[in-house]
Amino acid sequence: MNTFGRILRISVFGESHGGAVGSTLDGVPPGIPLSEADLLPDLQRRKSGATGTTPRQEPDLPKIVTGVFQGHTTGAPLTILFENTNTRSRDYRQFVESPRPGHADFVAQRKYGGFQDYTGGGHFSGRVTLGVVAAGAIAKKILAPATITSEVLEIGGQKDYAEVLAAAVEAHDSLGGIIQIRVDGLPVGLGEPFFDSAEARLAHAVFSVPATRGIEFGTGFPAARMKGSEHNDPIVDAQGTTATNHAGGINGGITNGNPVVFRVAVKPTSSIGRPQQTMNFAQGGVQEMLVEGRHDSCIALRIPPVLEAVTALVLADLKLVAQGTAPFAPAGE
Amino acid sequence: MNTFGRILRISVFGESHGGAVGSTLDGVPPGIPLSEADLLPDLQRRKSGATGTTPRQEPDLPKIVTGVFQGHTTGAPLTILFENTNTRSRDYRQFVESPRPGHADFVAQRKYGGFQDYTGGGHFSGRVTLGVVAAGAIAKKILAPATITSEVLEIGGQKDYAEVLAAAVEAHDSLGGIIQIRVDGLPVGLGEPFFDSAEARLAHAVFSVPATRGIEFGTGFPAARMKGSEHNDPIVDAQGTTATNHAGGINGGITNGNPVVFRVAVKPTSSIGRPQQTMNFAQGGVQEMLVEGRHDSCIALRIPPVLEAVTALVLADLKLVAQGTAPFAPAGE
Amino acid sequence: MNTFGRILRISVFGESHGGAVGSTLDGVPPGIPLSEADLLPDLQRRKSGATGTTPRQEPDLPKIVTGVFQGHTTGAPLTILFENTNTRSRDYRQFVESPRPGHADFVAQRKYGGFQDYTGGGHFSGRVTLGVVAAGAIAKKILAPATITSEVLEIGGQKDYAEVLAAAVEAHDSLGGIIQIRVDGLPVGLGEPFFDSAEARLAHAVFSVPATRGIEFGTGFPAARMKGSEHNDPIVDAQGTTATNHAGGINGGITNGNPVVFRVAVKPTSSIGRPQQTMNFAQGGVQEMLVEGRHDSCIALRIPPVLEAVTALVLADLKLVAQGTAPFAPAGE
Amino acid sequence: MNTFGRILRISVFGESHGGAVGSTLDGVPPGIPLSEADLLPDLQRRKSGATGTTPRQEPDLPKIVTGVFQGHTTGAPLTILFENTNTRSRDYRQFVESPRPGHADFVAQRKYGGFQDYTGGGHFSGRVTLGVVAAGAIAKKILAPATITSEVLEIGGQKDYAEVLAAAVEAHDSLGGIIQIRVDGLPVGLGEPFFDSAEARLAHAVFSVPATRGIEFGTGFPAARMKGSEHNDPIVDAQGTTATNHAGGINGGITNGNPVVFRVAVKPTSSIGRPQQTMNFAQGGVQEMLVEGRHDSCIALRIPPVLEAVTALVLADLKLVAQGTAPFAPAGE
Repeated sequence: MNTFGRILRISVFGESHGGAVGSTLDGVPPGIPLSEADLLPDLQRRKSGATGTTPRQEPDLPKIVTGVFQGHTTGAPLTILFENTNTRSRDYRQFVESPRPGHADFVAQRKYGGFQDYTGGGHFSGRVTLGVVAAGAIAKKILAPATITSEVLEIGGQKDYAEVLAAAVEAHDSLGGIIQIRVDGLPVGLGEPFFDSAEARLAHAVFSVPATRGIEFGTGFPAARMKGSEHNDPIVDAQGTTATNHAGGINGGITNGNPVVFRVAVKPTSSIGRPQQTMNFAQGGVQEMLVEGRHDSCIALRIPPVLEAVTALVLADLKLVAQGTAPFAPAGE
Repeated sequence: MNTFGRILRISVFGESHGGAVGSTLDGVPPGIPLSEADLLPDLQRRKSGATGTTPRQEPDLPKIVTGVFQGHTTGAPLTILFENTNTRSRDYRQFVESPRPGHADFVAQRKYGGFQDYTGGGHFSGRVTLGVVAAGAIAKKILAPATITSEVLEIGGQKDYAEVLAAAVEAHDSLGGIIQIRVDGLPVGLGEPFFDSAEARLAHAVFSVPATRGIEFGTGFPAARMKGSEHNDPIVDAQGTTATNHAGGINGGITNGNPVVFRVAVKPTSSIGRPQQTMNFAQGGVQEMLVEGRHDSCIALRIPPVLEAVTALVLADLKLVAQGTAPFAPAGE
Repeated sequence: MNTFGRILRISVFGESHGGAVGSTLDGVPPGIPLSEADLLPDLQRRKSGATGTTPRQEPDLPKIVTGVFQGHTTGAPLTILFENTNTRSRDYRQFVESPRPGHADFVAQRKYGGFQDYTGGGHFSGRVTLGVVAAGAIAKKILAPATITSEVLEIGGQKDYAEVLAAAVEAHDSLGGIIQIRVDGLPVGLGEPFFDSAEARLAHAVFSVPATRGIEFGTGFPAARMKGSEHNDPIVDAQGTTATNHAGGINGGITNGNPVVFRVAVKPTSSIGRPQQTMNFAQGGVQEMLVEGRHDSCIALRIPPVLEAVTALVLADLKLVAQGTAPFAPAGE
Repeated sequence: MNTFGRILRISVFGESHGGAVGSTLDGVPPGIPLSEADLLPDLQRRKSGATGTTPRQEPDLPKIVTGVFQGHTTGAPLTILFENTNTRSRDYRQFVESPRPGHADFVAQRKYGGFQDYTGGGHFSGRVTLGVVAAGAIAKKILAPATITSEVLEIGGQKDYAEVLAAAVEAHDSLGGIIQIRVDGLPVGLGEPFFDSAEARLAHAVFSVPATRGIEFGTGFPAARMKGSEHNDPIVDAQGTTATNHAGGINGGITNGNPVVFRVAVKPTSSIGRPQQTMNFAQGGVQEMLVEGRHDSCIALRIPPVLEAVTALVLADLKLVAQGTAPFAPAGE
């Protein structure tokens, strides 16, 4: 359930306050130059520290335990570990009795029968995305020369969001935002009709990232209000370049050579430092709670490298599959 | 690539103008009462006929070829076939030379090296969703007593869309729309954190349906503009009922007992009867084209039962997985 | 559960006395020349008719319903159907009450709660291998120029088995046999260490064929009685040719360029025309039963093309995966 | 490629001389009591030390990094690590130029283009089975009250093998052997017809273990020389108990309630301390080589707990799937 991909396959594991979080990436072609330093730029971008992010500071140094030899991938699976060091002891047990609104406390208690690791969010923690970002940095190398970029379009509804962000931090409240991902330089032909469509696989991966609430490709929801004569992208050259890119670079589930563009809605962080209402299961009845601790006021600010990573993982996998199923050249030709 | 699911698994096959389209559904528990008549209501809702839908009329009668015995599922895979009868001979070959904007003509030619079935959209045709709707009707039985409903929220940007639809048909143009899906009566606990999250799997399935451009759960994109104190859903009873449902019935990837609600953006149909610009690959250079034929002016009107079907397939699969991985009761207890 | 493969994936469906049996083959590269006639030679070899095979005669004519266009594969899934025509009405219901020894009657009743199709073996029938043989014929084309051959090494313990076979038919009894499969011309490098090892995948596929009891690669069980100095195959040229082939063409799970060789033990057909002992569940207690009907006295005679087919399916899949994960050539080199 | 299973899924990773070896086990039900101490007995049985096993001594202490909380499984994936400590520096590079007969040196060089980790066998090393044994110990808890036992039937062809083993060690040669696995107490109904048959899945897992050359279920290869009237197992009571167990506890791919019994042929260890012939790729031409180092003279002596582990992993997975797909009880009944 924690694995994704057909040839290039990522598995994630770990808990926020356990020994470690990490991932295993299988199906990586041999011969890719790789060191731990190559993973740092994306991990650095994911780190907290800026206004609106949690004061919990972890070094987040990746350790590539397997699958690299003499500076290159070997073809064997890569396991990448991140130790948890800055775990703070506190009474998380209260969230089993009084689940925090917006969090997985209630569903975890019911699904796992009380056996879930409830400290710091356990396996639901955003820290598990560390392994995703590290694996994504490798996938980006497979996907080259195509490149992935991300942009924070708005936070709290504002393009210039410094002010609303400061206000939310001040109010112990949180904000959401909208992130745009763009992939340039993709070949024509990645993805399949139906269940392995590029959009289907990308959407699957994006919604695997905690806090995502929506995704739209190309023109997206506004496309539902256009006429076909406006929305269809005219093809203007033999490479498939289109005059517009309402389709977001994908037709029939398959990349068409134009930039793949999609936007992701990120909800306001569930952890807030304001009074909230919930059930008290031990005593029965509704109660008011106040959650203290170290929070991100706006997880949308840290999510862009995670979204880039899952994008890279999906498209690199589709690239390897496309190499495997290229049109047939009979023996002897 | 045409298969989806972990225990309950659907495979689709077929082409618009080939011998048949259909699907195989594996992992169906034995003992579910089933006849072909049970599939007809959803298939009927998917049929064309109304204003804004194609004049091509197919009987769309399902034939359950395998997996049913004496009126019940047997536990063996069900294969369901739909014969193609009303195929109209015409010059589809022209769309290889001059690919239709918005269609998969160009990417198919490049990906499949010219070997794709280009008649009537081939395997990219919406007719392939017949097998999905039939399989979904079976999945709904597995998912009972939970129920799935759909609603056309708007067409061409209008809640009362009759007028804009008539205008689009008149103009040989097309319209998109927004569909809402709602699932009531789900148990707490379907879905997993990360790659098997309920949202991830649902989004995957929804984007497997041709013409989808966006999906949002619960409050969706507007959630990105809310504060956490507004967005968090207070829990008000021991069943997990929440005062609001901004989360769309899912926390941490797992159903929380509230209705699962999401909206899907459907693009305006690519097939329009108006002049469009494209490349002519045989002669080189850009040319104007006019596509004649039988089209849906608004595929969004026919897509609701398809979206219900993929929703049922995903949630029924998650239900079977949840049954398989229930909390451990040691032997002897 | 009825699907196998990573890129090249076969799904089987159908029952002996239902409407049809067949298979869907997904992941087939586009551009392979293919007609139904191409499937007939292997299907013909699988047919009954010779001494020791069932008198039930079916035309076994394949119908490729999808995935082929203008004489070539399209890249879309191929569904191949075989109608059941020569089904004979009889009282199979008795085998639910008194399960036949060696058959799946008892386990099916318990596993499927009485809902299984019990006529003619239902989904357990060897007729389901028709779809496997048809798909295998396509896989052989992907695998070319490598070639697969099979040999009946012995029947009833005899290399010259005509006499023991005639005696078994006369006695209404049945015989088993040992089949050898050999694949020549494989490239070096198919398969992976551990769970996708060539032996692991081949053994999986072979034991999916009803009536198989054992498999051994290269020298097989006798290798367990050799010394390493005898068993290790000396490498004698740069192509990896070895002086001996005790390893059966596979090292570390990966093909080494030598012929892949394995042997399969096939049990004597469970259906015999002699009195046997079983339970009578309706009345309680043990009873003697005599199963009448049309049987193969020796299924081992019809199984060789089935074993060739699963061999082709596995190795063609590994070939496509190997194409997808070839050593990395960085962009620009 | 390093992952196996449908619900209960194991992934292995690591190299003999890298930082660590280990595994991740996903799909484990929550609530199973578990500590690292629970893994030690099977790991201890796998260790070297006895006559005929390598003098390399590793502590082989498992570290459960994730997925356990307060002494129970949580439902999240378990990652188990084993550090490599006793790695001995030597010139493994020579085996790239002159691949050792029987080893994966040649195929690895060709498949991975020279990027494989060639030290100590790299990812092909038997050390990777440590993670399998640890995961298997957890699977055994899921499978309880069913129990798995193993027996060394013969080494070097001898039931009383002390003498031949001592002679092989003295001669710097190696021996193979035959191991029998037996599972008692299984419920009726695990496994599926065709590709998820119990035999197919077990054989897949067994051949994933390095050094295996053959497998046979029940009576196995000798069954090919029996008559059906001898081989069919008469059913003697309502639990499906059979008078004989030629079928090895499986009919039609499904467990029948009798003990599951199979035998595995293990080849003589490829590493021997005697002169062997191979190619020298750097200089061209055939050369004689003598491989020094620490070897197991008989890996068959250490393999039984590994075979038990893969058996447990397969059957526990089939058990969880069977729970998920139990016969249908309609809502309200």
